[in-house]
Amino acid sequence: MKIAIDAMGGDHAPEEIVKGVEMARDRYKDLEFMLFGTESEVKPLIQSMERLELIPTNEVIAMGDEPVKAMKEKQDSSLVQAANAVKAGKADALFSAGNTGAILSSAIFIVGRIRGVERPALATAFPAFGGPHKEFVFMDLGANAENKPSHLYQYGILGTFYAESVMGIDNPRVRLLNNGGEEDKGDDVHKEAHQLMKNTDAFNFLGNVESREIMEGTADVVVADGFSGNATLKAIEGTALTMMGQIKESIKGSGIRGLLGALLLKPALKAMKHKMDFQENGGAVVLGVKAPVVKTHGSAKANAVANSMGQIQTMVEENLVGKTTDFIKENADKLKVKKAAK
Amino acid sequence: MKIAIDAMGGDHAPEEIVKGVEMARDRYKDLEFMLFGTESEVKPLIQSMERLELIPTNEVIAMGDEPVKAMKEKQDSSLVQAANAVKAGKADALFSAGNTGAILSSAIFIVGRIRGVERPALATAFPAFGGPHKEFVFMDLGANAENKPSHLYQYGILGTFYAESVMGIDNPRVRLLNNGGEEDKGDDVHKEAHQLMKNTDAFNFLGNVESREIMEGTADVVVADGFSGNATLKAIEGTALTMMGQIKESIKGSGIRGLLGALLLKPALKAMKHKMDFQENGGAVVLGVKAPVVKTHGSAKANAVANSMGQIQTMVEENLVGKTTDFIKENADKLKVKKAAK
Repeated sequence: MKIAIDAMGGDHAPEEIVKGVEMARDRYKDLEFMLFGTESEVKPLIQSMERLELIPTNEVIAMGDEPVKAMKEKQDSSLVQAANAVKAGKADALFSAGNTGAILSSAIFIVGRIRGVERPALATAFPAFGGPHKEFVFMDLGANAENKPSHLYQYGILGTFYAESVMGIDNPRVRLLNNGGEEDKGDDVHKEAHQLMKNTDAFNFLGNVESREIMEGTADVVVADGFSGNATLKAIEGTALTMMGQIKESIKGSGIRGLLGALLLKPALKAMKHKMDFQENGGAVVLGVKAPVVKTHGSAKANAVANSMGQIQTMVEENLVGKTTDFIKENADKLKVKKAAK
Repeated sequence: MKIAIDAMGGDHAPEEIVKGVEMARDRYKDLEFMLFGTESEVKPLIQSMERLELIPTNEVIAMGDEPVKAMKEKQDSSLVQAANAVKAGKADALFSAGNTGAILSSAIFIVGRIRGVERPALATAFPAFGGPHKEFVFMDLGANAENKPSHLYQYGILGTFYAESVMGIDNPRVRLLNNGGEEDKGDDVHKEAHQLMKNTDAFNFLGNVESREIMEGTADVVVADGFSGNATLKAIEGTALTMMGQIKESIKGSGIRGLLGALLLKPALKAMKHKMDFQENGGAVVLGVKAPVVKTHGSAKANAVANSMGQIQTMVEENLVGKTTDFIKENADKLKVKKAAK
């Protein structure tokens, strides 16, 4: 199994990317790696060429680049060349810690959509602080700024396959992120999506969920439109950061007593921080494209990069893309009927 | 100054409502209160009739009632009668801790929109953990499931008046909640709203803000569409609750060491919880209607009710509605030009 790596994407690239890949090579004995990057920068970092190939590239897509433009114009960039390798069948999956928009564009336009999938989506495994499972799938996190009801319906299918195959959850509980529990809540898109989801037997739909409740583990797949999914994810991250900062401030402000208390509570606070630090366990996945595409956060260090490789290995081993493709092919009529019924 | 009170709305009504009103009577010497509620339940709770009038009503709108239907059918409910009193000019403002949707409907359809305001919005003062001011205005929090660009543009005006008049912020910094900082981010509604806001001199627009950053105090008025504003607010609340719960769990799980640490940190944690508990300081306000309408959370106790009365007093004293009405009247042409230019 071979993974195409964009060695130049991310705040700590290429150092932490190369380090993470070599870490992953030690952990996962079946993995091989194609490293795409600027030779003069990447080559000196590599410790051993075991199961590793360096493909020199001459351009880099920066974090601030306009995504589609960068993908089109920087044909010899590490990201575009890595995506080309996946498209050509030379690699089984794509990894990058770089510009999210450019990764999405490369996934959709180079790796390509699975036939029948209207809009690929960005998904992540998010920690559940309650409920029967440790994590749930949260999507779309911003691949799309605008969604139709049929997109949301399809996310139920894509998310269910991910929860089953990669997270090992049987018959995952799917819910639609909406601004109320009742089925007539939300704008027209969400009302219609609710009806499509309610009337399908393609997955196990349990109704709406509000953003207040998603962290409690009330669903295994939370389907959101890209705009409010993105806003919700960032609100959660912002609140967690703000609260951790506030706790620190409060401790500092309460003198020796606070410092002593903090010292005693350190393991407890660390455990919580660890659980909130979910991005360490793997990356966000572009679902609905013809190969696994994983994106870790820009500030990822070697360990997060290595963990993403483990996540990719599971996706390839479990044949996530194949299963999804087959299901969509076999149920093409059903999917069309759904839309016609609208 | 007279406030019409729905004594029957809220999880702890009428007990805590009546208690809160009497608390407010002691604090604010210029306030008079019209209490609308079921006589047999409310009358026994009242300690003194000083500056207080009880208007008996025979129906109650429950938390689970369908809002518009309830407002139309329960004409003799405490909420509808209180709203009628405001409409008739017998009271200057409306207060309820009940069914949010029904309060919004009563505000919009009974109290009535200010002429020229396309869509009233639900706003709250939210704690800023950074920046020059203690709080910022966050709106729309769910009065509308769907918004047009012109609605968002008008929220900039409504929010600016609230921040100036009630929170005493000069030249408030207005930002648009969007899924990225650049002006071409978001769906068509947000892109177009950004242009309207950027090209106006009606308020001080500083561009987009992401939900990750709003708590840092990067704006004094955060304008959101009702759907993602609602999702963001609930995500923040849910995360804060989950984290407080996690801290407690972690403490319990770390034995005598954790308990001792918690004891020492108690003042620090309490200070943080207090700041997050922003709803205690006042209620959410329906902006864009002909009188101040304030709604506290359903679980409000007497103190939060009394604080809301103080908030209402400021709104009436500062003539928030009058100022807003005059501005919109004087700038009607400008507002229309904006729309025509679209």
